[in-house]
Amino acid sequence: MALHIVIMAGGKGERLWPLSRDEKPKQLLCLDGRASLLRATVERLLPVCDAAHMLVVTGADIAEAVRRELPELPGENIIAEPVGRNTAPCIAYAAALIQGHDPQGLMAVFPSDHMIADAQAFRETLAFATRCVARHPDYLLTLGTVPDHPETGYGYISPGRELHGEGPCVLREVEAFVEKPDHARARTYIESGYLWNAGMFVWRADTILEAFCRHMPAMYASLMKVQGLEDSHDAALKAFYGEAEPISIDYAIMEKATRVGVIPADFGWNDVGSWDALGKILDSDTQGNAVHGEVRLKDSKGNVVWAGEKKIVLIGMEDTVVVEGEGAILVCPRQRCQEVSSMARQMKAEEFPEGL
Amino acid sequence: MALHIVIMAGGKGERLWPLSRDEKPKQLLCLDGRASLLRATVERLLPVCDAAHMLVVTGADIAEAVRRELPELPGENIIAEPVGRNTAPCIAYAAALIQGHDPQGLMAVFPSDHMIADAQAFRETLAFATRCVARHPDYLLTLGTVPDHPETGYGYISPGRELHGEGPCVLREVEAFVEKPDHARARTYIESGYLWNAGMFVWRADTILEAFCRHMPAMYASLMKVQGLEDSHDAALKAFYGEAEPISIDYAIMEKATRVGVIPADFGWNDVGSWDALGKILDSDTQGNAVHGEVRLKDSKGNVVWAGEKKIVLIGMEDTVVVEGEGAILVCPRQRCQEVSSMARQMKAEEFPEGL
Repeated sequence: MALHIVIMAGGKGERLWPLSRDEKPKQLLCLDGRASLLRATVERLLPVCDAAHMLVVTGADIAEAVRRELPELPGENIIAEPVGRNTAPCIAYAAALIQGHDPQGLMAVFPSDHMIADAQAFRETLAFATRCVARHPDYLLTLGTVPDHPETGYGYISPGRELHGEGPCVLREVEAFVEKPDHARARTYIESGYLWNAGMFVWRADTILEAFCRHMPAMYASLMKVQGLEDSHDAALKAFYGEAEPISIDYAIMEKATRVGVIPADFGWNDVGSWDALGKILDSDTQGNAVHGEVRLKDSKGNVVWAGEKKIVLIGMEDTVVVEGEGAILVCPRQRCQEVSSMARQMKAEEFPEGL
Repeated sequence: MALHIVIMAGGKGERLWPLSRDEKPKQLLCLDGRASLLRATVERLLPVCDAAHMLVVTGADIAEAVRRELPELPGENIIAEPVGRNTAPCIAYAAALIQGHDPQGLMAVFPSDHMIADAQAFRETLAFATRCVARHPDYLLTLGTVPDHPETGYGYISPGRELHGEGPCVLREVEAFVEKPDHARARTYIESGYLWNAGMFVWRADTILEAFCRHMPAMYASLMKVQGLEDSHDAALKAFYGEAEPISIDYAIMEKATRVGVIPADFGWNDVGSWDALGKILDSDTQGNAVHGEVRLKDSKGNVVWAGEKKIVLIGMEDTVVVEGEGAILVCPRQRCQEVSSMARQMKAEEFPEGL
């Protein structure tokens, strides 16, 4: 029962616009001066999983860039989605692929564009999760990160009775997945021990396929239809994605399935979901300014400043995001940076009114 | 008694950094989408003065660019200062040059980096000034612009008794030049009918040279020494500027001279002395945003945004200056844009610690 890793690298990451862009989305950005988020994700997993057992599912338009970014992965392990259809089709296809080669295969699914501060703790949690799946092969497990503030931007998981424990590690039944809350509700969630839904999953490939069969029968059927085409990814992907409903794994499966477990995880997870979030990770000066590149500040505090080719100079600015991307410059208050992605999409739609 | 124009084009205009820079200072910037400030200055004067009678005094480093900008001027009419020494040496040298060719010559001196909305009114004021000088050949005249707000960034002129009047035009004795005031004082100045010192002068070349002889004897002596070298500007300029004290014409002459007149002038003068000032001239949208280039605004008002190569996007910003220059991006509140020039100088000093 080998471990297979599926890394979902299909996102656009428009919330980090204008640094992220179509040809270089968030997962390909190097935010820590060391490696892209995608590469860091792979490197974090290489100690526990051979490169041959890693699948990266990404968009066809950036598949070549992803291959260059991950030279240790066999080329055929980069799955190029002809069109983005959210996470459920991506996971279904990968599961079928894994199960085809390894009928009892274990499968762990991770986003490619998050940061994890403590890679060792992450791998220990993953190891625990694989042992849990060995004990409970009919369970779908998710890693629920332990909140450190009442975030309104994430979904939450309400954990129930303990299924299995090893020292500090514990697997609990999931009571409910709950939608992004308002601030007051987020506070009560934290007080009640809820966890953040971080989009990380561990299960047997056959178990998740059974779940698709039950909860997403049309998608499952179209998956079965193309399984013979598997050796030619292009044809299979085109056929499957051409029919696939765009839906998240949470809506498609997790919220409907009956045997779902959650492992509280505390390894410094951050989804880098906004310039504000990135500002909290980057090193800050004594005035709370998080900067990248050539930046000059006078009487300025609490800003997030990302310089590219040009020097950025701030005089008397507070709590403002200033980002120089390749073709655009963004200036907005930190507390409004959630509006960046819709602005980016809107501008793209105007630029290419034919559709993306 | 022909009219000679002297256009002072030696400034750095660091208050419009990062758009202005050493190789393209403010006077060479095109701010209205039509012509550079320098070129607009020349075009405003061409109807009343032949190009052959215009002298442009500028820095050696940008003299070639100035020649290209003003192809109608004879090459030798562009005087290249080997080093900037403020306005007094520039005016003294130009006066000597004019007087050498035209002993009774009339001379009008203008900055090259201001905007004037009503060129016709400007030329009428200039014509009146030349008639005043014909009547009062021993007077040094300045055009004092009529204030429309209690500006603290300019010096003021207190006007006294009337010397000459023609309909709405009037020449008054200057009672005093006064330094840049604080806000309260500026208000009393306006109530008292004070005028802005806009750095525009009209006089006979021999009269200003006499004033130099009296009030700046060392500068005058060094000017006389090089007068024989006049046909070779390079040698004369090098010798004169090598010794010249850096001092403004106001300090050197105007504040000391006894026969000084002022003509109240109202032709939409703006010195474009800051991004805030430029923002008041540029067309604004209904939210008071003055923008140039490709700019996208959401919930933003009162901003001054100057885009260069890149698109600039503002979300939820107010009363902020955002400027993309060739090598740098500036972000600061409008009310702090007076600090831009010192920041620009400071950064230049750090970049070239050997001196500029």
